[in-house]
Amino acid sequence: MKLTLYYAPGACSLASHIALEESGLAYEAFRINTAAGEQRSPEYLKINSRGRVPTLVIDGRTLTENVAIMTFIAGGHPKSGLWPSNTLDQAEALSVMSWLANSVHPAFAHIFRTERYSDDVSTHEAIKNKGRETFWNCLKEIDAMVAGRRWYFGNRFTVVDGYLLVFYRWGLRIHLDMKSLTHYTALVERVASRPAVKRVMAEEGIALQP
Amino acid sequence: MKLTLYYAPGACSLASHIALEESGLAYEAFRINTAAGEQRSPEYLKINSRGRVPTLVIDGRTLTENVAIMTFIAGGHPKSGLWPSNTLDQAEALSVMSWLANSVHPAFAHIFRTERYSDDVSTHEAIKNKGRETFWNCLKEIDAMVAGRRWYFGNRFTVVDGYLLVFYRWGLRIHLDMKSLTHYTALVERVASRPAVKRVMAEEGIALQP
Repeated sequence: MKLTLYYAPGACSLASHIALEESGLAYEAFRINTAAGEQRSPEYLKINSRGRVPTLVIDGRTLTENVAIMTFIAGGHPKSGLWPSNTLDQAEALSVMSWLANSVHPAFAHIFRTERYSDDVSTHEAIKNKGRETFWNCLKEIDAMVAGRRWYFGNRFTVVDGYLLVFYRWGLRIHLDMKSLTHYTALVERVASRPAVKRVMAEEGIALQP
Repeated sequence: MKLTLYYAPGACSLASHIALEESGLAYEAFRINTAAGEQRSPEYLKINSRGRVPTLVIDGRTLTENVAIMTFIAGGHPKSGLWPSNTLDQAEALSVMSWLANSVHPAFAHIFRTERYSDDVSTHEAIKNKGRETFWNCLKEIDAMVAGRRWYFGNRFTVVDGYLLVFYRWGLRIHLDMKSLTHYTALVERVASRPAVKRVMAEEGIALQP
């Protein structure tokens, strides 16, 4: 099976990148320079017509969306140990990842990609302010979720933990008081200290503190 | 296994409701009156602290998020026939459902729940306008996706098809020219004519045309 990941440094594709590296599967990773607009190049649009990252190409077939990519990697390769072992925990992993993708990520997008939500620039400050409030509430919810846990699923590191690191970094990036989220901070520091995660961050040229 | 679904009529929970009814599994369904704010009642917040629908309670354990609920029902019960049979199609089902949940649904929420995105009501018109444009682009993308297909996955009806019906209804609700999306219209009419889907819509007290 030939696996090729397209990512942008520090984007949400970091979660899929971590999942691949942790899995031990062989893969290639290609960097998309979103600052230069490479995600809208004709070459990339042929691979992913939405012009977003991540994209995983599996033997020539395109798979988009973090939730699908991480479930394919972790759920499809149980030996990786990256997926909970029982059915109800697997459903919960999907639930958490889905919420990260459909609520936490969009909250941040209102701050960082405000033009997606209104053509009238005079409205952008209000949208950013609300996005910041919503994003912060999400981060506090994550902090409560992981209180007293080594990993999201107790003793087992899963793809959920790698995904959680992405939004922590984004919180640091916009100068939220992430250190006050002590449980989330401790979990993310454990994630960031894993050898596979260190390799991915070095490859992407990023640090935990953006 | 005891299954209890909490839904609001015509909300995105319709997708999980259809999945359950199509699966043949035994379940109870409880209606949450969102117009009356029941989703924020102390009783419901004990079940789902986010105050959203759908919620599926499985032997006393709460599962939220359509993507997780539908995958649990369909993927966890292969005899239902509601899930693709091969791994790459399963990954694609997750990808499509994830996109519906994190892009198509939020686009509509900007029109219908604008207060989530800005506290300043003077900005709401601009946000609604952009939401309408984004939602319509998503619906056109769905139309192109399903061109020439009986169901999303060819000859096999899956939970993806039930989820697609939700956003078609929402398009009708805000008077978009849904009939011009001929492929999407034809697929949704096939979905709506299924006996299980008819039973669910009768139970929710809704029609395809809101």
